[in-house]
Amino acid sequence: MSRFQTVRTLTFGDCDPAGIAYFPSYFHFLNGVMEEWWGSLGFSWRELIQKRRIGLPTVQLDTQFLAPGFMEDELTFTIEITTLGSRSLTVRHTVTRGEMLLWRATQTIVATSLDTNGSIAWPDDIRAALRSFQEA
Amino acid sequence: MSRFQTVRTLTFGDCDPAGIAYFPSYFHFLNGVMEEWWGSLGFSWRELIQKRRIGLPTVQLDTQFLAPGFMEDELTFTIEITTLGSRSLTVRHTVTRGEMLLWRATQTIVATSLDTNGSIAWPDDIRAALRSFQEA
Amino acid sequence: MSRFQTVRTLTFGDCDPAGIAYFPSYFHFLNGVMEEWWGSLGFSWRELIQKRRIGLPTVQLDTQFLAPGFMEDELTFTIEITTLGSRSLTVRHTVTRGEMLLWRATQTIVATSLDTNGSIAWPDDIRAALRSFQEA
Amino acid sequence: MSRFQTVRTLTFGDCDPAGIAYFPSYFHFLNGVMEEWWGSLGFSWRELIQKRRIGLPTVQLDTQFLAPGFMEDELTFTIEITTLGSRSLTVRHTVTRGEMLLWRATQTIVATSLDTNGSIAWPDDIRAALRSFQEA
Repeated sequence: MSRFQTVRTLTFGDCDPAGIAYFPSYFHFLNGVMEEWWGSLGFSWRELIQKRRIGLPTVQLDTQFLAPGFMEDELTFTIEITTLGSRSLTVRHTVTRGEMLLWRATQTIVATSLDTNGSIAWPDDIRAALRSFQEA
Repeated sequence: MSRFQTVRTLTFGDCDPAGIAYFPSYFHFLNGVMEEWWGSLGFSWRELIQKRRIGLPTVQLDTQFLAPGFMEDELTFTIEITTLGSRSLTVRHTVTRGEMLLWRATQTIVATSLDTNGSIAWPDDIRAALRSFQEA
Repeated sequence: MSRFQTVRTLTFGDCDPAGIAYFPSYFHFLNGVMEEWWGSLGFSWRELIQKRRIGLPTVQLDTQFLAPGFMEDELTFTIEITTLGSRSLTVRHTVTRGEMLLWRATQTIVATSLDTNGSIAWPDDIRAALRSFQEA
Repeated sequence: MSRFQTVRTLTFGDCDPAGIAYFPSYFHFLNGVMEEWWGSLGFSWRELIQKRRIGLPTVQLDTQFLAPGFMEDELTFTIEITTLGSRSLTVRHTVTRGEMLLWRATQTIVATSLDTNGSIAWPDDIRAALRSFQEA
């Protein structure tokens, strides 16, 4: 099964007065990692939004935080597809520091029309790219 | 069953180029609402962290986003306790705009020692306050 | 001279591992305070952006941080107009905790067309409202 | 004169409903770039804060935003030292997209003791490293 991986470094500003990563900052990273993955599939979110008027809101996000992250940690984000629906996509995220699993999440996004804010079926080219990634 | 409620307004800077609330910003609100609730119970997070060296990291967070939020929306956050464990606390968050449920989350936090980063049992005064809230 | 004032509370998540307010978080507050002030003048940013296609980007921002803010601090933000130009507006922000001045900023924004990203003259109704505030 | 350069990519979540970079997000990047530069000089902020109890708060930040940034823009951040004082450091930041200057800032930080929150003279090793960078 295909996986997408990329690395991010936790900064001072991503951490909180308890000295560990602030979880809302983690989700800002997670969203940027999704955007990078979509770009790697050939779909720029800027184009999707501005030209094709397609949004990709998150409808479900289940997260387990297993061990704290600290500033300067180098985190490896991994994305795998778990379910490709006709209007939705569910992926599994794992975030590791070296061999250690820090947190994992299951995220479901849907395709929407930015003009109506209603859900739409995946356009053919997007579905084909996601299926191709899934089966690679 | 007791509930804590407070209101937040979505700003321009909490929203994204798709024109709706950016979900990591939602979690920044959610965390601030938790902090406000703890303050209302008599436990300042500043004191917990600095004087008592107690942290309250999130270990599980399951969220469903049902309808988009928009800038200027006035959101009502509601917290209820679902489970009070010996070292953990699970709460249900609901976030509404008027009558409309926008999103909900189930969050589990644990008590930790900031000196060891290991979990600890709830101190007596905190457990008593949480139980009292739950049973009110 | 007229002034706009509003209050914000610093949260745990607005602070950093050094235990004080993280300055980028301050600017998120500052922008939200500007938005609130514009709303009080009768101009919803949501309407400006979506209906009138007017943007208000910041072109200059000079800030002095005089004393640290801490979590739970209640901050009073004050806005005064210093210069109202034909296409720009300069305001002075002061941020206090009780009697203590924590930081101050001078911010210049310009009116732009979101369709061209070029600057535009203030529409009459906006200029009138700003002048009225300034002279009140 | 020596310069430090590093690259950041603007994400969807760094931009706002007007479709351009949200300036508080820019400052989150700027702070991370400073942290990376200090790391490159041999001074981990994590160690400075936790072991040496030294903070580096910003006391002055003057910024000019000349052209908007958009999501997916690849930004080059450049840092140069303008003044090295006995207790402070002033740097010039420039942020470019290709040949185009998007914004620039002048930032002054001071060394503080995290135990007293008062300013301190630069420790010898830090001053030596900064001077060496400046003169390289």
